[in-house]
Amino acid sequence: MKVKRLWLWAVAICGCAFVLPSFARTDDLSSLSQDSNQWVLPSLNYANTRYSKLDQINTDNAKDLKVAWTMSTGALRGHEGQPLVVGDTLYFQSAYPNHVFAVDLDDYHTKWQYTPRQDEFAVAVACCDLVNRGVGYASGKIIEDALDGTIIALDAATGRVLWKAKNADPKLGQTVTSAPLIVHNKVIVGISGGEFGVRGSLTAYDLNTGKRVWRAYSMGPDSDVLIGPNFKGPRNAGINTWQGDEWKLGGGTTWGWYSYDPNLNLLYYGTGNPGTWNPSQRPGDNKWSMTIFARNPDTGQAVWGYQMTPHDAWDYDGVNEMILANLTMSPGDPTPALVHFDRNGFAYELDRRTGKLLLAKPYDPSVNWATGIGSDGRPVVNPKYMTKAGVNVKNICPAAMGNKDEQPASYDEQTGMFIVPTNHNCMDYQAFTVKYKAGFPYVGATLLMYAGPGGYRGAVIAWDPIKGQIVWSDHERFPAWSGVLSTAGGVAFYGTMDGWFKAVDAKTGALLYKFHVPSGVIGNPMTFMHGGKQYVAVLTGVGGWAAIGLAAGLNEPTAGLGAVNAAQDLKNYTNLGGTLMVFSL
Amino acid sequence: MKVKRLWLWAVAICGCAFVLPSFARTDDLSSLSQDSNQWVLPSLNYANTRYSKLDQINTDNAKDLKVAWTMSTGALRGHEGQPLVVGDTLYFQSAYPNHVFAVDLDDYHTKWQYTPRQDEFAVAVACCDLVNRGVGYASGKIIEDALDGTIIALDAATGRVLWKAKNADPKLGQTVTSAPLIVHNKVIVGISGGEFGVRGSLTAYDLNTGKRVWRAYSMGPDSDVLIGPNFKGPRNAGINTWQGDEWKLGGGTTWGWYSYDPNLNLLYYGTGNPGTWNPSQRPGDNKWSMTIFARNPDTGQAVWGYQMTPHDAWDYDGVNEMILANLTMSPGDPTPALVHFDRNGFAYELDRRTGKLLLAKPYDPSVNWATGIGSDGRPVVNPKYMTKAGVNVKNICPAAMGNKDEQPASYDEQTGMFIVPTNHNCMDYQAFTVKYKAGFPYVGATLLMYAGPGGYRGAVIAWDPIKGQIVWSDHERFPAWSGVLSTAGGVAFYGTMDGWFKAVDAKTGALLYKFHVPSGVIGNPMTFMHGGKQYVAVLTGVGGWAAIGLAAGLNEPTAGLGAVNAAQDLKNYTNLGGTLMVFSL
Repeated sequence: MKVKRLWLWAVAICGCAFVLPSFARTDDLSSLSQDSNQWVLPSLNYANTRYSKLDQINTDNAKDLKVAWTMSTGALRGHEGQPLVVGDTLYFQSAYPNHVFAVDLDDYHTKWQYTPRQDEFAVAVACCDLVNRGVGYASGKIIEDALDGTIIALDAATGRVLWKAKNADPKLGQTVTSAPLIVHNKVIVGISGGEFGVRGSLTAYDLNTGKRVWRAYSMGPDSDVLIGPNFKGPRNAGINTWQGDEWKLGGGTTWGWYSYDPNLNLLYYGTGNPGTWNPSQRPGDNKWSMTIFARNPDTGQAVWGYQMTPHDAWDYDGVNEMILANLTMSPGDPTPALVHFDRNGFAYELDRRTGKLLLAKPYDPSVNWATGIGSDGRPVVNPKYMTKAGVNVKNICPAAMGNKDEQPASYDEQTGMFIVPTNHNCMDYQAFTVKYKAGFPYVGATLLMYAGPGGYRGAVIAWDPIKGQIVWSDHERFPAWSGVLSTAGGVAFYGTMDGWFKAVDAKTGALLYKFHVPSGVIGNPMTFMHGGKQYVAVLTGVGGWAAIGLAAGLNEPTAGLGAVNAAQDLKNYTNLGGTLMVFSL
Repeated sequence: MKVKRLWLWAVAICGCAFVLPSFARTDDLSSLSQDSNQWVLPSLNYANTRYSKLDQINTDNAKDLKVAWTMSTGALRGHEGQPLVVGDTLYFQSAYPNHVFAVDLDDYHTKWQYTPRQDEFAVAVACCDLVNRGVGYASGKIIEDALDGTIIALDAATGRVLWKAKNADPKLGQTVTSAPLIVHNKVIVGISGGEFGVRGSLTAYDLNTGKRVWRAYSMGPDSDVLIGPNFKGPRNAGINTWQGDEWKLGGGTTWGWYSYDPNLNLLYYGTGNPGTWNPSQRPGDNKWSMTIFARNPDTGQAVWGYQMTPHDAWDYDGVNEMILANLTMSPGDPTPALVHFDRNGFAYELDRRTGKLLLAKPYDPSVNWATGIGSDGRPVVNPKYMTKAGVNVKNICPAAMGNKDEQPASYDEQTGMFIVPTNHNCMDYQAFTVKYKAGFPYVGATLLMYAGPGGYRGAVIAWDPIKGQIVWSDHERFPAWSGVLSTAGGVAFYGTMDGWFKAVDAKTGALLYKFHVPSGVIGNPMTFMHGGKQYVAVLTGVGGWAAIGLAAGLNEPTAGLGAVNAAQDLKNYTNLGGTLMVFSL
């Protein structure tokens, strides 16, 4: 759909330009995101399904895919985002230094390009490579989150800066890597820095002015956490599940993906690890770290919260995406659910109205730190794998990067399965006492990660949400750190860290097509129509936590928070460099 | 041809490993370079023809070309080189920081990778982006020229460093950007820095030890220039065509391509601009700047020299490649010739045995600084376009970057035409007095470049060397700064600065295929066979002098030695980033 032309047409019919404002149709992202020809939200839609109704590319013809066109991003570090397509324009943001491009889909020329001026201190404190997860779009504006926490609204037509807001202070270890989500003219922005004693928060800025509307901290007094009378849960747990003032360095950062249910008017997201990685320094549940929150997007007020890993002792951040799907767990009882593949190795399926747990089962065969999730919703921790200061606890599965990290799964509506990119690493974890100093790492643990049982380091799996079982699993040499796109053509797409872009049969996982891209893929495939043709695009450019050794030139096995050891051989397979790759038949 | 396997076979037959040394066959690059399946010399062969006998891709099927595989180079600046293919391995070098890769052609994994430790001062003094023009190969060794002038021999099988030599001192403005040429176990290396008062030289290092064998300066006493009794030309002109000691800052750098005639045992190359760009500071012919030299590769002794632009006043460096071809200028009289498309806009065709001029005609319609080349071999300068200190001389054609710069042409043996990538810019040139300070620019001129007549800024042309005429011309938006490959399939390949890779009919210039590559192309297409399939590969990654504004982030029109103005709009078409792109049917 050509937004601009529609508007011109509207003007012509009315004879009066003021009846429909420019880009009027785009104000309603809910309906705009239903147009499969475009891709206007980071995860395609508010439900974060990454399932497209496009079917021109199907299981029969996917073998004939070829590269249609390409474009360098001008950045060498990890690309964890995805392009947007609005009308005739494709928008994308590179890894740091966070170039934003608007590219004409007709002739691939650059309509405009913008690179923010940033506080370079952000480079020093970004924990896990200088990644970015993409831009947001609404009402003729492109929203960029820059690494140093500057939030920038750009005119989508010209690239002109409309406003800037400051969401982080790198001097305190704060950065921003996530993609914004825009709901009701509010720009929802997260924060990174859980390894620097940052107290995490989610913040909403006014889309038109950049003014802050609300900020919800992950811990602290209920007034800071935006917990009010309607909250289903304990009061002031953001303080009283901590020892002393430790909540002020409480972590619970919010750098994952955000989803939204327009019917319930609820926003969903997860919070990260609590403060230091040394659990001995912070007795208690450490709420509301590791928590799925449901909030009113207009006020920020929490409606419910579900903590997956109380008193985390493994860095199992809870930031992974919530996918909204209606699941019929028992016949005749369809439930508006939320599905979340957590870092801790368990797939959580909740009633998204209430936070009630429907199902929680491991989605990787190696999970050993907990034997299951109890009826109280809490993990049943295997004491053998509980970490504490001064002890090197070995062979914990999954490793700190989890059986899945931020790499987003897809809900394949056609099969009813979730197609999930997973990691298969385990770890040794030695906690130690650490003192806080602003802007310095506040980690308190030495880690060593390595391949899990079977020797493979990742897999893309299909997950049956009703049975809570893996349906098929495609093993990969390295963590499957790319997102998954599935389509009505029955084809699912993903990329690998060792530099292959793959199309597989969503029903069986059978490989239909693969192509050797310029660099390993940790970005997320998306699809759109242009000129009657279906395209699949992905940002290649390896990096991120799993590839931090290659990205930052580290060799020491325990460097990169223990990740370097698990991918020492990555340099034998791929190389740094960001490129937009676009495929078609 | 699989070098290693041949060797194993030889051992097996002989039963004695010492009869044939490892990689014995590769010692003779002359014969190895005749094998069209590989590409073992930077310009394919010693004659620098860049014409391949491969014909699987032809004028009928070129439309069906597609991208076969890709690989990021991990570097963002200008890529002016080309890969080599030796046996089953593809080798290439990135722009600064000059990563070298050995890639397995079967599965595209990286056999080894090497990045030199460099003197970072080189980055500050490299005049025209941080480009590189590729590696050399001989006898199981890969030779890398790094920007800071370190010459490194690597074991082709393992990447192990065998020796290092130092060919430049960045503190004096010296750098190295060229590809080495290996002749008779001598590694021929040039030098850059003509804008820093560097006295240019060509140096030979022993392939096995890295020890210097000879060095031939471009000016100074005959003993430095390696001019002896057998030289056809004047004596000590390297001193007595200069005022005072100005020859010590004489320029005449040697950063282009080198060619070699095994029958005559002569090495050919050109020297660059004399010292400062202000001609008023250096009366005289300024020999041997701007000169084609023929030298004995074993001793370095000069046999003849031909100065194209005596007393240069336009920066028309003479470094462009010499292509060796046998031309029948008049019926029944085939001549071993050398064809050179000079920066000054004239195509020179010389008898390569003697340096005798056969023909010199402009190869771009805009040339105006000289009305022709006289019978004495000297240009007939139009006084209107003679530059001098204190005067802004306008509308000189070509601009300083010439109607062609280092981007190498192809001699299409099938049609007998030269297919030449050209620039079509003109300039204003204001010389001024400058004082020498070691390591600081010694330019002495302010330039402004802009599109030549007709508004286009480049073209790929076919040149009839007998008639001295353009046969066809494909205009391009920007300077055609990629090399040209032509093939027995009748297809010529080149790339454009605005990001298109093109296949054209060598006979007519008609476009057969184009693809939008990740970044503008200033590298040189090459071709090889693997597994029965013909591949065409090119390094994309815009930069170099013509794109210095985009590469170095410069906006001031006269910046980049006047080049920024001529490509201010390049950012609307392409973006920085090095990628190896490989095409096949």
